[in-house]
Amino acid sequence: MDYISTKENKTIKNITKLLSSAKYRKQSGEFVCEGIRLCKDAVLSGAKVSTFLFTEDAMNKYKDECEMFISYAEKSFCVDNRIFSGISDTDTPQGVLFVVKTLDKSDDFDKINKNGIVLALDNISDPTNLGTILRTAEAFAVDSVILSKGSCDVYSPKVVRGSMGAVFRTRFTVCDNLAEFIRDYNNIGTSYASILDDKAQKLSDIHFSKPSLVVIGNEANGISCDVAETCKEKLFIPMSGKAESLNAAVACSIILWEMSK
Amino acid sequence: MDYISTKENKTIKNITKLLSSAKYRKQSGEFVCEGIRLCKDAVLSGAKVSTFLFTEDAMNKYKDECEMFISYAEKSFCVDNRIFSGISDTDTPQGVLFVVKTLDKSDDFDKINKNGIVLALDNISDPTNLGTILRTAEAFAVDSVILSKGSCDVYSPKVVRGSMGAVFRTRFTVCDNLAEFIRDYNNIGTSYASILDDKAQKLSDIHFSKPSLVVIGNEANGISCDVAETCKEKLFIPMSGKAESLNAAVACSIILWEMSK
Repeated sequence: MDYISTKENKTIKNITKLLSSAKYRKQSGEFVCEGIRLCKDAVLSGAKVSTFLFTEDAMNKYKDECEMFISYAEKSFCVDNRIFSGISDTDTPQGVLFVVKTLDKSDDFDKINKNGIVLALDNISDPTNLGTILRTAEAFAVDSVILSKGSCDVYSPKVVRGSMGAVFRTRFTVCDNLAEFIRDYNNIGTSYASILDDKAQKLSDIHFSKPSLVVIGNEANGISCDVAETCKEKLFIPMSGKAESLNAAVACSIILWEMSK
Repeated sequence: MDYISTKENKTIKNITKLLSSAKYRKQSGEFVCEGIRLCKDAVLSGAKVSTFLFTEDAMNKYKDECEMFISYAEKSFCVDNRIFSGISDTDTPQGVLFVVKTLDKSDDFDKINKNGIVLALDNISDPTNLGTILRTAEAFAVDSVILSKGSCDVYSPKVVRGSMGAVFRTRFTVCDNLAEFIRDYNNIGTSYASILDDKAQKLSDIHFSKPSLVVIGNEANGISCDVAETCKEKLFIPMSGKAESLNAAVACSIILWEMSK
């Protein structure tokens, strides 16, 4: 077992870059997940793990898990507590971390499961929202998630953590042209654009039947014009109070709850 | 108009401390809100503003708003761009900021509006969640929000921002003993504990009538035993998918959506 005692080590430098740069994650085809639970999720989902990094403290505290992770990963390294804390994305690190190969997701329309509920995200930009949305999508049995090209990176550490591992289990794909995707989709199911306009259909009045697709828009700007125009239907969430809008992850969750009923 | 050109200035030091320390906010009875929209919300809600801080760039870009803020605040200071960026809690600061007196919220049971929907938060610890919950509570016309003593500070910058100004408009109070509050409440309305147990009542089967109260628990540990036991009813959100649980703000939003129908 190799022991890393300097942050100048190339494995440490690679992990730091994977944690901070979406561009680098895309280039290298790898991302990082941290903590016992997420590492277990990675193993259970059959993800390819190139590196397992752990501290001596973690090996003492989580012996069984660490031994399993060592046998699962291609390479494993023991590292200084201090170095681990320095690269960790969390306030109270457990001292275990995987470098995982990004999951093979094709944006080929034909390969996506379109029979149930499809969730399309049009330029969701906040990683906390995206993580929460993936977690909720899993809870309400969404079949596929389509992300527009301008959405934030699903492999960002905040998304991976916020998704509670859903990122390993959800079928998702990044789509070059969301409007075109929806145009094709309209041949097999009903597409809904979620908008802030009380002339649209009230969510509470809609009886969803499968297959159906719903689009959630960007936090500040909503759904792009061409995408909204392509959707067969428009829906809005009636609000009885004074607020003008809901957080994007909240709006998405309420809609998925209604669709899953 | 005073001009601040050094971060050693006592106003700057005070703001930095208000942004970073919940304890200091409590001691001084003040908090900070940043950005044109939140400052407008503060004015519209009639909050007492002790200090208005702005950059020259902001004065050029938002002249009308800045002049209104100057006439509204007790004291105003113009500050270096560099210093503003240094203390700002946002990535792309607009260059305006208020120091606001904390709103007078009593935890006196009698003063709280209990006739409609009451939302009780039992040790919600994540400020992003709390901000989102306050925003949603306003959207669905919750009448009062009760926070247990162990919940995170409502005046934290992340809560203020995430609430989209709801913190200025929502009636909320911090309660020393949530179980006791609910015991009293049971004399006038129905209390529900939201729990992760499929033996509880399904949310979709409940017909809510007012007055009613719902408790949302801590992100990791759920609702405290004594609080859950005090509630008349227990409810859970049925999930069709594989995830074990929902994010606390998401669970809260789905329940408030159902209660507001």
